[in-house]
Amino acid sequence: MLSKKLIKDIQSLGLKKHREESGLFVAEGPKIVSEFLHLIPAQIEHIYATSDWLRKNTGSGVAVTLVDEDELQRISQLKTANEVVAVMKKLPQQKPVLKDEICLYLDTIKDPGNFGTLVRIADWYGIRHLIASTGSADLYNPKVIQATMSSIARVNVWYDTDDSFLQHQHMHVLAATLNGRSLHQFQKITSGILLIGNESHGIRPQFLEKATDQVMIPRIGGAESLNAAVAAGIILYKLTS
Amino acid sequence: MLSKKLIKDIQSLGLKKHREESGLFVAEGPKIVSEFLHLIPAQIEHIYATSDWLRKNTGSGVAVTLVDEDELQRISQLKTANEVVAVMKKLPQQKPVLKDEICLYLDTIKDPGNFGTLVRIADWYGIRHLIASTGSADLYNPKVIQATMSSIARVNVWYDTDDSFLQHQHMHVLAATLNGRSLHQFQKITSGILLIGNESHGIRPQFLEKATDQVMIPRIGGAESLNAAVAAGIILYKLTS
Repeated sequence: MLSKKLIKDIQSLGLKKHREESGLFVAEGPKIVSEFLHLIPAQIEHIYATSDWLRKNTGSGVAVTLVDEDELQRISQLKTANEVVAVMKKLPQQKPVLKDEICLYLDTIKDPGNFGTLVRIADWYGIRHLIASTGSADLYNPKVIQATMSSIARVNVWYDTDDSFLQHQHMHVLAATLNGRSLHQFQKITSGILLIGNESHGIRPQFLEKATDQVMIPRIGGAESLNAAVAAGIILYKLTS
Repeated sequence: MLSKKLIKDIQSLGLKKHREESGLFVAEGPKIVSEFLHLIPAQIEHIYATSDWLRKNTGSGVAVTLVDEDELQRISQLKTANEVVAVMKKLPQQKPVLKDEICLYLDTIKDPGNFGTLVRIADWYGIRHLIASTGSADLYNPKVIQATMSSIARVNVWYDTDDSFLQHQHMHVLAATLNGRSLHQFQKITSGILLIGNESHGIRPQFLEKATDQVMIPRIGGAESLNAAVAAGIILYKLTS
């Protein structure tokens, strides 16, 4: 049986403060945990799993504690816990040194689902570095982790804690806005920084002035804007095609 | 002051059962409520708003009750209520009669954020009809409504309650899968049904066999898949360009 203190400690990882103190975070569910076991086993501190999960996953060399459904629910951040909770060590995050490549810069993406989806999109397009401004969602928020679907094992997410990163870059910076040039006019590129802004307020002026060009997705119907992650996915499709 | 019964009634609209009994749903926040006031005022049953909101929105001809922040929070579905809660009448939803146009068919999109984002994407591309299979999220779930950003005022969302809709269509049905033809090979189209599957399980066989073609977004990096809404946004971009 899990001690009350342990349950409390794991639950507390739902809060950024406790993640920062401990250097730990949680990942849940068979899909993401099995990918982490495969890709970054050294980052796994401990796994708490039901017998269902254990039957399908043996011999991983990682410390595992068998729990029942009730216990799993008590340490879970999800409404309905799903077979396994992994307590993970945060990943080493490095300040990107960009070569000839495309990367993503996110200005104040606050919604955890959007932030995680953007990490997953970066991974889909083979982008190695995603940089996030001050005020962005925390990568280790459980909702971000769920939305990334293990892509954090492949994408370096780096926080630009003084919003100065773009000042020191000499690459093209392409800002996604609602009044840029039509995406239809853009050709395939192999290097550059795509700048995506906040869901409600767009890109802050201090970042926008670093942009060397602006791109807009042509609108056909009535919606005022697209979700930030959807917009990034569309623009990256065109720029890599 | 709002009565306890009224607060309970409004709160209960967070549950599908109560929305079905009453024919009502809630929309929250100044942006979406002001769009509804503009686009579909007749659907608004009642508005509950703080003095902040009332200062900026007058003379709408809709019944409004002034509430304080505490009261607003008590009737809100959000963690942090935002100026205004509108109790709305459900929209008339009609079985689509498709002409020469593109429409979206969603198979079991369960996540409310994804479902709402898909309605918003449809609206962006001028799609008039979105059809949802059994097992899909409820359009009037507060999280769906928030994600649609008022696009439900422009897109007819129809539930295919016996999953038979595709059987009676004679248009091209294009299924988004992970092993279809490359999206690069597709040209602009002006009519057809784009079929998008469940976040984890993809498209059910009974729907997939109705597909006249399958499309895949070429992957460059490591992510196993893209979020369903992001994938739909990318495919629709290409098919309408």
